[in-house]
Amino acid sequence: MNQDNTWLLPEGIDELLPAQARALEALRRTLLDCYTGWGYQLVMTPFIEFLESLLTGTGRDLELQTFKLTDQISGRQLGVRADITPQAARIDAHRLRHDAPTRLCYIGSVLRTRADGLSGSRSPLQIGAELYGHAGVESDVEILCLMMETLRVAGLDHVYLDLGHVGVFRELAAAAGMSAHEEAALFEALQRKAVPEIVAIVDGLQADAATRDMLLALVELNGGEDVLERARGVFATAPAAVRDAVDYVAAVAERLRQALPNVPVHVDLAELRAYHYQTGVVFAAFVPGEGQEVARGGRYDQIGEVFGRARPATGFSADLKTLMRLGSYRPQALDGAVLAPADNDPALHDRVTELRAAGSIVIRELPGQAGDPKQMGCSHRLQKQAGVWELLPL
Amino acid sequence: MNQDNTWLLPEGIDELLPAQARALEALRRTLLDCYTGWGYQLVMTPFIEFLESLLTGTGRDLELQTFKLTDQISGRQLGVRADITPQAARIDAHRLRHDAPTRLCYIGSVLRTRADGLSGSRSPLQIGAELYGHAGVESDVEILCLMMETLRVAGLDHVYLDLGHVGVFRELAAAAGMSAHEEAALFEALQRKAVPEIVAIVDGLQADAATRDMLLALVELNGGEDVLERARGVFATAPAAVRDAVDYVAAVAERLRQALPNVPVHVDLAELRAYHYQTGVVFAAFVPGEGQEVARGGRYDQIGEVFGRARPATGFSADLKTLMRLGSYRPQALDGAVLAPADNDPALHDRVTELRAAGSIVIRELPGQAGDPKQMGCSHRLQKQAGVWELLPL
Repeated sequence: MNQDNTWLLPEGIDELLPAQARALEALRRTLLDCYTGWGYQLVMTPFIEFLESLLTGTGRDLELQTFKLTDQISGRQLGVRADITPQAARIDAHRLRHDAPTRLCYIGSVLRTRADGLSGSRSPLQIGAELYGHAGVESDVEILCLMMETLRVAGLDHVYLDLGHVGVFRELAAAAGMSAHEEAALFEALQRKAVPEIVAIVDGLQADAATRDMLLALVELNGGEDVLERARGVFATAPAAVRDAVDYVAAVAERLRQALPNVPVHVDLAELRAYHYQTGVVFAAFVPGEGQEVARGGRYDQIGEVFGRARPATGFSADLKTLMRLGSYRPQALDGAVLAPADNDPALHDRVTELRAAGSIVIRELPGQAGDPKQMGCSHRLQKQAGVWELLPL
Repeated sequence: MNQDNTWLLPEGIDELLPAQARALEALRRTLLDCYTGWGYQLVMTPFIEFLESLLTGTGRDLELQTFKLTDQISGRQLGVRADITPQAARIDAHRLRHDAPTRLCYIGSVLRTRADGLSGSRSPLQIGAELYGHAGVESDVEILCLMMETLRVAGLDHVYLDLGHVGVFRELAAAAGMSAHEEAALFEALQRKAVPEIVAIVDGLQADAATRDMLLALVELNGGEDVLERARGVFATAPAAVRDAVDYVAAVAERLRQALPNVPVHVDLAELRAYHYQTGVVFAAFVPGEGQEVARGGRYDQIGEVFGRARPATGFSADLKTLMRLGSYRPQALDGAVLAPADNDPALHDRVTELRAAGSIVIRELPGQAGDPKQMGCSHRLQKQAGVWELLPL
């Protein structure tokens, strides 16, 4: 390998230089403080876990996205976290075990074997919040509001929401007696809205004509909130669970209209995002010109069960680097730094300590150093005048 | 795998629950703000890199500590960072390319295949600072002072410093014409202060008697600052580079006495810590009762060369989780949270927003929720009285 590419980074892996890192750190703090204000407590989950724990209850999508390692100590397989949500659920179910609703938030790098979506990143800085212990529209709406507050703080404009419910498709698939293979194939075709494929798959099912018609109707059930009225017609004879799912989405949409009247809501009843652990309402936020969602979430009530305690759960997550890239958030500008000469005078040392304690950046000059102090961001210099270290403009 | 251990974490891997995570986050911010005040700019380095870039110039210790992965996209080998210092050096040498001294700081998880030291952690949260572009005592002392400031802020008491210089051993080994194998064996025996082994290795060397005596003397050259005077005697006829190294350590010790008069300094000229990239003075901080250092660093002038630009470099790093565990730092206590009833009154919504903006934690009650608000950390409740949402103690 020659010098020129010794520094190249793998595809989808990035690093942040000072200006970007400072901005990201400021946004990180602002968001975590916001989550604290909403009662969400920070947890820090492990970067690697035994593969079994990491993937329990999460489905095959996440498994394919997970980097695997061998543990030299135990000889067992480890996985690098590709998603923090299941880890937070494990902490709620196994470590905290509260009866009251538990609100957790987190931020951390995750790694994915393949780039996720249009940002092309394989190392998102996942930030998110999860609410455990309450099954109902109110907790989903709280999470949706916190997700939208996150995007507002990050300075994303013209955000719109996509709402769906995994129960619609799942219950229809069950009613149609579909095999796991058929269900996966139809799900995949629905995500692409590939009508000829959808028709072919549905035509091949053993299901009755009414159920087949409902499955075919799914591909059209997206648009404004009028979709919910249409869906009520289409699913009039569907299993109760399908109709309940539609009603649930309608209730969430109604609450959102009150809480966030300016946010356009789009309904897509064929939409089933994320890693297959969702069990109820699902949602995603988009901004114009980005095909990929900027934040997403939903309800996932079963995941804690394998860790000893099934708890209702809902949450959202986003990639902080994507929010930084697409949003207008900028940190407060830094004041110019102060250059302190290379002098061992204890009075200078005290003055430097005092300035730093007051929030100034003070850079010590190094004997014989190269470069212009202005290039180092300095606007002032400490200089001894009549025995006192005075701050003078450069 | 049964339910009981689905949640078990691999050896040396931990997770932080809310109280710990909040404390760590507070200390993180305090330290990064301190580094900013000293002119150190935050960078965020990638969690994985091509193995070649990651290990370039760092030596075999680090290679053994590095988890390896296969990149499904490029087919090449990736490594998970086990140390952030070489990454920061790459950023300085290849991305920033300033002429003036560059000060960088960082914080991030690193992973190690085997537990490092007594803390037993395989996932330290590495925090550190690096100063590039100045070769001399002043930059080493600045880094030493910032390291000690880090430990002071973290609330570690009775810290003492160990000072050494890799030049002493390296130059003697070169003068003795030692093979790489002999050098490694002697180095390893010196770290353990295994006198019979040291004698056997030195006796087997082709070197002249004077050089052999100097190598044997190394094991005794540790103690208070008087060691430096003894070393001057022992190395009177040694190559100039050996004597220069001793003088360099003496100059650093002298400056430290002025800057940090209360910090005990211990000198060990046989000590060669860390991952073999150090080239000059090396140092470590200890606290009583912990065999493992709590922070360490040193000069490593050559590492940037492979990335296209050799720059003098010095820096330190520590594990923030260790500092948290051993130090007395505690975050400000949280005020009790406010419980806001499940009520859609827009006036309540405004009051909640106002309280949160003023820094209060406000938790929305969820209809039918379990648990006692006091267990959720609430001390107050919003209640409508005469049409106004009032804050009442619980």
